[in-house]
Amino acid sequence: MAVRAAVAGASGYAGGEILRLLLAHPEVEIGALTGNSNAGERLGALQPHLPPLADRVLEPTTTDVLAGHDVVFLALPHGHSAAVAEALGDGVLVVDCGADFRLRDAAQWTRWYGTPHAGTWPYGLPELPGAREALRTTRRIAVPGCYPTAVSLALFPAYAAGLAEPEAVVVAASGTSGAGKAAKPHLLGSEVMGSMSPYGVGGAHRHTPEIAQNLAAVAGEKVTVSFTPTLAPMPRGILATCTARAREGVTAAGLRESYAKALAGEPFVHLLPEGQWPSTGAVAGSNNVLLQVALDEDAGRVVVVCAVDNLTKGTAGGALQSMNIALGLPEELGLPTTGVAP
Amino acid sequence: MAVRAAVAGASGYAGGEILRLLLAHPEVEIGALTGNSNAGERLGALQPHLPPLADRVLEPTTTDVLAGHDVVFLALPHGHSAAVAEALGDGVLVVDCGADFRLRDAAQWTRWYGTPHAGTWPYGLPELPGAREALRTTRRIAVPGCYPTAVSLALFPAYAAGLAEPEAVVVAASGTSGAGKAAKPHLLGSEVMGSMSPYGVGGAHRHTPEIAQNLAAVAGEKVTVSFTPTLAPMPRGILATCTARAREGVTAAGLRESYAKALAGEPFVHLLPEGQWPSTGAVAGSNNVLLQVALDEDAGRVVVVCAVDNLTKGTAGGALQSMNIALGLPEELGLPTTGVAP
Amino acid sequence: MAVRAAVAGASGYAGGEILRLLLAHPEVEIGALTGNSNAGERLGALQPHLPPLADRVLEPTTTDVLAGHDVVFLALPHGHSAAVAEALGDGVLVVDCGADFRLRDAAQWTRWYGTPHAGTWPYGLPELPGAREALRTTRRIAVPGCYPTAVSLALFPAYAAGLAEPEAVVVAASGTSGAGKAAKPHLLGSEVMGSMSPYGVGGAHRHTPEIAQNLAAVAGEKVTVSFTPTLAPMPRGILATCTARAREGVTAAGLRESYAKALAGEPFVHLLPEGQWPSTGAVAGSNNVLLQVALDEDAGRVVVVCAVDNLTKGTAGGALQSMNIALGLPEELGLPTTGVAP
Amino acid sequence: MAVRAAVAGASGYAGGEILRLLLAHPEVEIGALTGNSNAGERLGALQPHLPPLADRVLEPTTTDVLAGHDVVFLALPHGHSAAVAEALGDGVLVVDCGADFRLRDAAQWTRWYGTPHAGTWPYGLPELPGAREALRTTRRIAVPGCYPTAVSLALFPAYAAGLAEPEAVVVAASGTSGAGKAAKPHLLGSEVMGSMSPYGVGGAHRHTPEIAQNLAAVAGEKVTVSFTPTLAPMPRGILATCTARAREGVTAAGLRESYAKALAGEPFVHLLPEGQWPSTGAVAGSNNVLLQVALDEDAGRVVVVCAVDNLTKGTAGGALQSMNIALGLPEELGLPTTGVAP
Repeated sequence: MAVRAAVAGASGYAGGEILRLLLAHPEVEIGALTGNSNAGERLGALQPHLPPLADRVLEPTTTDVLAGHDVVFLALPHGHSAAVAEALGDGVLVVDCGADFRLRDAAQWTRWYGTPHAGTWPYGLPELPGAREALRTTRRIAVPGCYPTAVSLALFPAYAAGLAEPEAVVVAASGTSGAGKAAKPHLLGSEVMGSMSPYGVGGAHRHTPEIAQNLAAVAGEKVTVSFTPTLAPMPRGILATCTARAREGVTAAGLRESYAKALAGEPFVHLLPEGQWPSTGAVAGSNNVLLQVALDEDAGRVVVVCAVDNLTKGTAGGALQSMNIALGLPEELGLPTTGVAP
Repeated sequence: MAVRAAVAGASGYAGGEILRLLLAHPEVEIGALTGNSNAGERLGALQPHLPPLADRVLEPTTTDVLAGHDVVFLALPHGHSAAVAEALGDGVLVVDCGADFRLRDAAQWTRWYGTPHAGTWPYGLPELPGAREALRTTRRIAVPGCYPTAVSLALFPAYAAGLAEPEAVVVAASGTSGAGKAAKPHLLGSEVMGSMSPYGVGGAHRHTPEIAQNLAAVAGEKVTVSFTPTLAPMPRGILATCTARAREGVTAAGLRESYAKALAGEPFVHLLPEGQWPSTGAVAGSNNVLLQVALDEDAGRVVVVCAVDNLTKGTAGGALQSMNIALGLPEELGLPTTGVAP
Repeated sequence: MAVRAAVAGASGYAGGEILRLLLAHPEVEIGALTGNSNAGERLGALQPHLPPLADRVLEPTTTDVLAGHDVVFLALPHGHSAAVAEALGDGVLVVDCGADFRLRDAAQWTRWYGTPHAGTWPYGLPELPGAREALRTTRRIAVPGCYPTAVSLALFPAYAAGLAEPEAVVVAASGTSGAGKAAKPHLLGSEVMGSMSPYGVGGAHRHTPEIAQNLAAVAGEKVTVSFTPTLAPMPRGILATCTARAREGVTAAGLRESYAKALAGEPFVHLLPEGQWPSTGAVAGSNNVLLQVALDEDAGRVVVVCAVDNLTKGTAGGALQSMNIALGLPEELGLPTTGVAP
Repeated sequence: MAVRAAVAGASGYAGGEILRLLLAHPEVEIGALTGNSNAGERLGALQPHLPPLADRVLEPTTTDVLAGHDVVFLALPHGHSAAVAEALGDGVLVVDCGADFRLRDAAQWTRWYGTPHAGTWPYGLPELPGAREALRTTRRIAVPGCYPTAVSLALFPAYAAGLAEPEAVVVAASGTSGAGKAAKPHLLGSEVMGSMSPYGVGGAHRHTPEIAQNLAAVAGEKVTVSFTPTLAPMPRGILATCTARAREGVTAAGLRESYAKALAGEPFVHLLPEGQWPSTGAVAGSNNVLLQVALDEDAGRVVVVCAVDNLTKGTAGGALQSMNIALGLPEELGLPTTGVAP
């Protein structure tokens, strides 16, 4: 019998990607689709790339509309998930693509988001140590941020194996869909095509504490993170360049071996052969993660470069992967393992 | 039991897209992959977006390698298909993505390609009148060119219904993958980003006679085609703007009704609701065709705009759609009906 | 003594380009800069590419602020120019980049813009027959629309020489800056990158009557125009593909000769050598027009492809070129004759 | 009397940009233009954005052709400059855009380039301490690499003021023109549009020792540099994100003050107002450098982001700026101080 899924926030980029993936999932039947200002509109006008759902009409985001589903995906602005989840009850699998339940430390939450902490849910990045197990039995999933997905996967093997000093320096380039579908002047095509620019520099991006939390958990100690996100002239994709000073005695071979071991058996994460480097184009539309690691012996640093699609593995694909685990389905079921390139 | 398929020319863009789609096809098992100068290389180095096939090694394109499959896809330069097809024998389904067997008129072939005519195979555009039937029983399929796919679908309803004068004017913008993967200076990213340019102007593009042949077949008379292709700064997609003088008495409502009727029931072709226009972004990676039609009363012309993905519906998707028909499988089986957007 | 120029609407794309060009003009001193919602802001925050003016502050668009200049450029929404021009008086050279004074036929104006006709000013496309002379003595200039600039330059030689039937078919691709700086969802980078889409199809774009007016003036008869504009994934540039049925007896050589003659001596318009085609990348940031003409003998049509930068020759450069003429300065003074490529 | 300048390597991207700038320089007359495989071709076919030089024909790169000029720009592959410079004699100003004379340490040169060291010429980055003075009297200029231009300008104020630890971590995104005009598959538009990828990771890029040399000179001690260049989907521009651990006691205000002081009076380098971040789009086509600095107090790091146009300030503009100094002309003469945006 099919799993019935609703999507709250179906008019945005995250919502659209969830729908694209759900349409290809063999065990899911798509139920209610909701929007806020777009309630009452045809989905075909909002997400013209999804013809099979073109005649669906968005309903308002209310618990009445969302009730009666097995799974509810929330692609809402921050701060809205707790109330919805509570109203839906414990039997429903709630998959929250927002930030509300990602951080464990209430003080950190309040520092970065300025509101009281709603709580912490199992974290939907199954590749992290212990995460897969926690997802098997939960009915609440906090989907990671797109940058934390890329950066945590890039650096956790180094920290788990004790190969890197606890001061990470990360510069990541993201496609513009990461900034959402709300019309803002600096996101106009005229502004972003042919141009790269940073934002949230100097530790101001809200994904910083989430990255630090993930790395500290595997390192067993506090890890500082200097994180600079940049906006790149492409619709999708994150390329994260992640470095940390190598600990004494680390060798290129040992580093590579640790990565191979930490990522062995992961269905979506691919450590590339030596000499080959990831590109975001190769993961577009897929749930794949491509990464490569190097030891810069002159600078004494571990350098890891990781490519993900911010909307797929970075949001909707990660959400479905975790859903599969929580529902006892095969983890890869229905998820794209090939990119759309060129 | 699975259909076993080989792909000749697996290192190029058409070959890569065929593989992407075959990987998602539930009834196909991927057999031999061949290349020419790339024989001996790992597919992972050539098509990094296809991790499930990364460790496959390209074999040389010989009939020995291609023998023993149920289906053989040919993504070869012009002039190579006839010999391969003959050697494979009549029992194998040969799907040719090249031009060799598209034209019916030997004189036209020789005028445009400069070599003797190899013959004519059933044409892999099932939406054209009579085409689907011819595909059901064939073991040879000539996959249409990417531009002829878009333009023929855009204009055949008007000509089939006798609504347009037999002088079509077409301007189409194509993504750069249509020009292939061979490294040429004018196709460098530095040259194409931020720039549009025409090529093959004044009737010089080899897709012109193919378009004219398709339109004449439905019109029942000769149709001249003024065709200007342009190169657009995007990797994929064709946007074809197709116009012809409206015949006396044509009305906007009648025009729309003819299109709705001609395209009714087509699984991949979508006449958009009035007021909505197609974009190539909405069909990226899908087998969909989005189109819209208008009557310009001041200019007295029918205007149809059509968006396809040149690599999917325009090449590999069209090829698999026709393969499904020839194998007696459901026509839509395994084909993507959603675009990867944004 | 320097000419003192004010720019009304300095925060938009047209205004920014006017300022970029004025900064390089040896005879102009930049006076007041005005905005509407942006009044009070530093120009550096709005136009970060213009560091020499970064500390200028936008003033409100009032006649008090604009008074006391030799030249006033208006880059305002439609309908605002008449009142400003009247208040400034006859001695000031007013260069209007809006549509208000472009059309000669009051009925056409009202049909397309829905308001009473404000009048007609000399038309700032000096290359058209008679236009340069009219500009020499005027204190009012109507700068052409960006599409009419490209299309009129592409087709006037054919119509002036009686080589083409009076039914033009035009498909033009424009960079997104043509749609302005107001934040609208369909203009987001995420939407436009990797995608082409049409708009104003079927004769609905307001530049259609302006094109028709220009062509009729040289043809000496009514010319219908089927015009389809498309949005291309690039910030700047227009590539216009313009065709019309060739009149009896037209030859390729005769066509080319007519173009060479009609464009001889034009400082900014370049008929390319045979076999070379224009690209928008080659004219980016310049006042140049690149064009090529062909006779499609099979289809019986003249095909002209023309590339301009919509913001430079298509708006601000055209405006300064006309200003130079009206002020008795050398026509090319201060205008960029080289593109910024790649 | 005009300075007569020749350009060796006029068919490439660096050569084209030198010509674009020379055309706008009031004191320079353009003499011989040379190419290698392109000798004998019209410049109009190779650099269609430069109509004023369209009819010039490339000559072979020989000392005979280059003799008799006041200035010779070399845009040649590595290893060719020494012989040309020697043949031209000491009276000619030779401006080398290649790497041959940038490094001071012969052992470093041989390690990175594998050939004997040709020598060291005054370094064409006038903003570095002492550099301007050395340029005033020289007849030999080594133009910096594009990445070293951006990174050195970003970090030298911090090292000059002793504010940062001598371990820099740099991640830079470059437009594709930085990779040159030779047709290579990974530089095709189809490959780079919509995609970001790293290269030369782990300290493998030849610009690393040049950056380290510049920073060490101002720091007065060895500075290690972890440098990761990435290829971005845009034709031009470098966005360099540069970080280093802050020394004890550094404050945000002190950091900013040091930058303001170090860059005061520089005609092309702009420290942006607080809260505003650079973009490559804003410097496109200009000789400007936009930068911003922040102190990340959580991570304890100085973060500087710097945008330049790799072809203008990063190559040709830097070359002309240094030429102006060496010729005793005003440093800014003829150089673009405004970007072409959007």
